[in-house]
Amino acid sequence: MTAARPLETKPAPSPCGESAGAGLPQPTAEAAYQLLRRDTAGAESHAEPVAEEVPVAMVYNGLSHVVMMASPTDLEDFALGFSLTEGIIDSKSELTDCEIHAAGEGVEARIEISARAFFRLKEHRRALQGRTGCGLCGVESLDQALRDLPKLNSELRVRPQAIHRALDALPALQGLNRITHALHAAAFCTPDGEIVGVREDVGRHNAFDKLIGTLAKDEVDTGSGFALITSRCSFEMAQKAVSAGIPVLAAVSAPTHLAIKLARSYDLTLLALARSDSMKLFSGARRLQP
Amino acid sequence: MTAARPLETKPAPSPCGESAGAGLPQPTAEAAYQLLRRDTAGAESHAEPVAEEVPVAMVYNGLSHVVMMASPTDLEDFALGFSLTEGIIDSKSELTDCEIHAAGEGVEARIEISARAFFRLKEHRRALQGRTGCGLCGVESLDQALRDLPKLNSELRVRPQAIHRALDALPALQGLNRITHALHAAAFCTPDGEIVGVREDVGRHNAFDKLIGTLAKDEVDTGSGFALITSRCSFEMAQKAVSAGIPVLAAVSAPTHLAIKLARSYDLTLLALARSDSMKLFSGARRLQP
Repeated sequence: MTAARPLETKPAPSPCGESAGAGLPQPTAEAAYQLLRRDTAGAESHAEPVAEEVPVAMVYNGLSHVVMMASPTDLEDFALGFSLTEGIIDSKSELTDCEIHAAGEGVEARIEISARAFFRLKEHRRALQGRTGCGLCGVESLDQALRDLPKLNSELRVRPQAIHRALDALPALQGLNRITHALHAAAFCTPDGEIVGVREDVGRHNAFDKLIGTLAKDEVDTGSGFALITSRCSFEMAQKAVSAGIPVLAAVSAPTHLAIKLARSYDLTLLALARSDSMKLFSGARRLQP
Repeated sequence: MTAARPLETKPAPSPCGESAGAGLPQPTAEAAYQLLRRDTAGAESHAEPVAEEVPVAMVYNGLSHVVMMASPTDLEDFALGFSLTEGIIDSKSELTDCEIHAAGEGVEARIEISARAFFRLKEHRRALQGRTGCGLCGVESLDQALRDLPKLNSELRVRPQAIHRALDALPALQGLNRITHALHAAAFCTPDGEIVGVREDVGRHNAFDKLIGTLAKDEVDTGSGFALITSRCSFEMAQKAVSAGIPVLAAVSAPTHLAIKLARSYDLTLLALARSDSMKLFSGARRLQP
């Protein structure tokens, strides 16, 4: 299977063109602070690395679509993954170029997409906006938030032990979190629990989009393994897994009810690793071999 | 000071009109799962409450502006707080009515705002969209994400012990999190550490917006106390505190570098409660009395 080759975690080569890169912020910065102890008067001066966070403008064919607050790492992966999970493009081939540039106080991801995808994006934005300043009604907006996705059809089988194995191995691969204790991670793993790619971000959605982007870039068969996220599993995390074709999603804490409903509708296997010695399986039991 | 009166946590009376309420989802739902133990074959069937999550369409004067995924509680507070921290309205008086209705698979917050605020919102949306389908350039979008806010000028003084006191008292007030272990909380506290209001949500931004909404609704002087959040402090959390006029923000984990920079620019006192016996003070030391 194509997932067997470990993905490079950093620096990520651009999937789709040269990145300008110059002047981009570092992922961590040293911050001075005073330590106040509970039972002692006075303060001690210290400094430690904290996670950087930057506004990233996703600019499609010159049109600034949205600004996301993100860790300034693996931004080409982020642009590709975000474009896929938001349904702006249907496949990697519709993203023809991507350059990351420092811009003002943040970063611009200058993304070129196919004429077809750009037309659809503009139509989508026009529908949201309306010609008269009157947008969609709330129900249409709500339907869009819960948009239809292709159902998963992977016949992957995973042993529960493989998920614990990946969970045990993950902290050593969270390079930025080890320094700052402030980033989420998303990992893709073989059915045996070998981690083949990890991405980190201050935002859990971004970490997962970066992972999905790097899987797409390297043409990894997303149906061939499972994803592990260090955050809770909200609806949008389950939606990203389904839209990326990842059949098994394990989160470190309980999913929301809407995430469970989505998982059951689309045949996503959804697990919560609440404790180190057990896990809770909310959907898609057939993929878990005992 | 006006913050002394405990805020009702639930159900929140509508600040701005009658709420329809009928057919709205409950905040928790029972979910069946299989428990898989690490060292035992087989699975046990269980069920437990999980947090509900619903798409909430924020509809201003009939215009659907945005859909937020949120816990279906205190949604009038959410609408008011979101409108304030997003800069859609400048004060509570610009929000003249708010009704919460079940709609399709989600919830509509039908918000009426002043003609002036609505005109500004439409101009803002038009600028984002552009007449020709060409939006803002990335730099303009980035500038907007880092928009100017009024500088804090509160001369509040807080004892470190008060922050620990509030942190110790908070879990007992997280009613939904006690059931589901999946919600964030934001609390507003007197300088002595008495918690006067708590709001919960599956999203940390939403919990803070709900809190800010309920403070505005009850005309609490936001300069008179501090906020405590059970999440990490990203830029947007610090931005919300400043835009709401809350001079001290304590989070349970490390802030991002951009959050620290914003705090220092706007004179926000920013603390991280990394451990139960100490805290880290990144900005605004003069408000912390030893």
